[in-house]
Amino acid sequence: MPETPHGANAATSRPPEGEESFGVSMDLVDAVASAIEDGRHADVEVQVASLHAADIADLLESLSDENRLALVDILGSRFDAEILTHLAAPVREDVIDHLGPERLAHLLSELDSDDAVEVFEDLDEEFQHRILTALPQAYRQILQQSLTYPEDSAGRLMQREVVVVPSAWTIGETIDYMRAAEDLPDDFYDLYVVNPKHRPIGKIPLSRALRTRRPVRLTEIMETDIKAIPLTMDQEEVAHMFRQYGLVSAPVVDEAGRLVGVITVDDIVHIIEEEAEEDALKLSGVSEGDLYSATLDTTRARFPWLLVNLVTAIVASLVIGLFEATIQQVVALAVLMPIVASMGGNAGTQTLAVAVRALATRDLTPATALRFIGKEVLVGAANGILFAVLTGLVAALWFDNPLIGAIIGAAMIFNMIVAGLCGTLIPITLERLGIDPAIASSVFLTTVTDVVGFFTFLGLASLVLL
Amino acid sequence: MPETPHGANAATSRPPEGEESFGVSMDLVDAVASAIEDGRHADVEVQVASLHAADIADLLESLSDENRLALVDILGSRFDAEILTHLAAPVREDVIDHLGPERLAHLLSELDSDDAVEVFEDLDEEFQHRILTALPQAYRQILQQSLTYPEDSAGRLMQREVVVVPSAWTIGETIDYMRAAEDLPDDFYDLYVVNPKHRPIGKIPLSRALRTRRPVRLTEIMETDIKAIPLTMDQEEVAHMFRQYGLVSAPVVDEAGRLVGVITVDDIVHIIEEEAEEDALKLSGVSEGDLYSATLDTTRARFPWLLVNLVTAIVASLVIGLFEATIQQVVALAVLMPIVASMGGNAGTQTLAVAVRALATRDLTPATALRFIGKEVLVGAANGILFAVLTGLVAALWFDNPLIGAIIGAAMIFNMIVAGLCGTLIPITLERLGIDPAIASSVFLTTVTDVVGFFTFLGLASLVLL
Repeated sequence: MPETPHGANAATSRPPEGEESFGVSMDLVDAVASAIEDGRHADVEVQVASLHAADIADLLESLSDENRLALVDILGSRFDAEILTHLAAPVREDVIDHLGPERLAHLLSELDSDDAVEVFEDLDEEFQHRILTALPQAYRQILQQSLTYPEDSAGRLMQREVVVVPSAWTIGETIDYMRAAEDLPDDFYDLYVVNPKHRPIGKIPLSRALRTRRPVRLTEIMETDIKAIPLTMDQEEVAHMFRQYGLVSAPVVDEAGRLVGVITVDDIVHIIEEEAEEDALKLSGVSEGDLYSATLDTTRARFPWLLVNLVTAIVASLVIGLFEATIQQVVALAVLMPIVASMGGNAGTQTLAVAVRALATRDLTPATALRFIGKEVLVGAANGILFAVLTGLVAALWFDNPLIGAIIGAAMIFNMIVAGLCGTLIPITLERLGIDPAIASSVFLTTVTDVVGFFTFLGLASLVLL
Repeated sequence: MPETPHGANAATSRPPEGEESFGVSMDLVDAVASAIEDGRHADVEVQVASLHAADIADLLESLSDENRLALVDILGSRFDAEILTHLAAPVREDVIDHLGPERLAHLLSELDSDDAVEVFEDLDEEFQHRILTALPQAYRQILQQSLTYPEDSAGRLMQREVVVVPSAWTIGETIDYMRAAEDLPDDFYDLYVVNPKHRPIGKIPLSRALRTRRPVRLTEIMETDIKAIPLTMDQEEVAHMFRQYGLVSAPVVDEAGRLVGVITVDDIVHIIEEEAEEDALKLSGVSEGDLYSATLDTTRARFPWLLVNLVTAIVASLVIGLFEATIQQVVALAVLMPIVASMGGNAGTQTLAVAVRALATRDLTPATALRFIGKEVLVGAANGILFAVLTGLVAALWFDNPLIGAIIGAAMIFNMIVAGLCGTLIPITLERLGIDPAIASSVFLTTVTDVVGFFTFLGLASLVLL
């Protein structure tokens, strides 16, 4: 085996076989932290030497603010630009402030254009300006143009570096070209065949190219169903397309249909996760993963949703206030009323969670909406009846009053049917109005189930008991 | 351009350039449904002829039960096995029952082994047995062995078909072998280099193989940091590894370190989405995406969590019951008490959502836990003070009683601090105990915030007002 720098270096730094665990352990974080604090820089360098950029990013996130910047200094010129793309936004800001515009400009120019844009677009305008002036002109133009595309669009997501081959070539010519070319991207999975107008007309997976004999023409083996993506397509839609068709890469085209970039699956993995995560967090009234935000920022970010919740809680209290006289006469009602509201809220939230995810994954469409709503109402009614019996028995025995049992049972059935109906109708309606159902549905829903729950229970009680 | 069957056929069935929307429109569903109902089978065949297997799966999901099975019959022998892998579980069961074991056995044998296992593992035992007897022996062994690996493990996820090359070869020998081989998988992204013991010692991305000249040895250009995955690794961990290192494929090894299969990123995309979605749904007390389940199944699946919620609601009511005498004297307390509980519950849920996702993505680790808990308590206290002032003012004005305002304010601050503390401690503790924090946290949390909210507010009121 000939010794080459590439193979040999990598082999000594990491065992080639499985079983090793991956990621950054707490022991490593502690060891690095104490080496930094003791000024043992050589030890730190050994500890991080074999780490992947993503692991170094995790390490930076786990360190205290001072140790984090100290590690950046220790890494010095060996600080890999790719680390920046793996850092959570607030930590990345810290590190970038510390690096300063000139260092950052240099680091960005080492990245593929999509990664550079990802880091660049989050900077404030003044910082962006200072970086642009420090960049070589060709690279500056790429960044500036990327920013003209809408946020979260295919144009921002794509990388400019595409392997393009003319349709007249054979496999042999293609392989010869690739062996000679200097400026190909690091990793790619498909070759794109373009016509003289630079429009993509076919795509050849590398595995197919490798298995084909030299004289075969590209047009004979290319796939022509290439799923071209317009520059302005939203990233969520792009992700849906990758998932639906199991794509590894897809070409991005401008309005004239010309090939201008390529999106690869590694970027999509992050978006799919981001979108699913966003939905999960939004349902709970958190706008974004704020694990690394400052306490003050987090407090401020969560305040509005809590305020909305306060208003809806007061609305529910106003409904209770209507029945003050009744409660004064039968205090049992005050004891029992949270049960009706809580069960409605929970049943509705179950429905809502399914509906919001189904809307996001396009499983809930106008074609399936009616069936879905009907089913959720039935489920609400069925569980409503079961829990009406249970709760009714408990209430009747507790307060030794069968009438109270009957009242809470009736209110329960009604509220759980309303929960099934609103748990579907609210997100579907919001989606049609162009409002994100994940963020707004849950406030509307619990307001409805609280108000309906309190009103039905206390209203029925006023009619029957007084 | 030479006319070849492959290029030409595909080109006529679909426009090669962008802008076309993708997926199944409601118009198409309606058109197919009415063509099926009118018995116009030729029209149906034209309508679905150019659809991707994933789109046909969506179409089947959107059709009514009868039309769905009718479409399967119309497709007949052109029913693509890949459609099965894209169908939601309940719809897939329907279709499989209709196809019967012999047809299914034939279809499974057309799939890559990972896809076949995915379909096979969900069948009931009797059906599995009937399929195994109908399969060729080699294929039967693969399926049977897959089932010996734990559910959701790398062993279930991997495909057996790997492109393996001996370490002594050159690029030229490798390309010649691939051009001659008949049994390579359809798509692959990396070549795996093995030593004589069949242990993977290196990995070569196809893009690198294509760019390298024939006489170069594989060992000179292979990556040796190959991130081998043990057969028993959980799929969530596998997904985390792909995401962390931007992998497109990774080798799976047995206990002896021998290469037994490969996992590719297209399978990972689904798992990442599934896991994020599961967390979102579990937080709302839904165990799985049940969009296509029968009403009865859904009712049954959601009942247990509602039952748990009923029990916790009754516990909260018992706490209220302790203060019946107080409420009778000051009915305003009954009107205001849901506000304290509701604000605590919501603040806690915000914290919880961030914590559960951070645990799943490994951003919340023992190394960062203390900082996270401290921050959430501070955020709870800060928002608690803000909302104590707001709510206190509203309550004091509403009931013309500053003392009630002060009491609700104090209870609010305390409950929101508790919410921040429990919103972090509960999921972290459950995770340590090996219980899925996504599914159990929210019940515990709202019980605590309800009980603490009612108890602090009514208890303080009893002490101060009476």
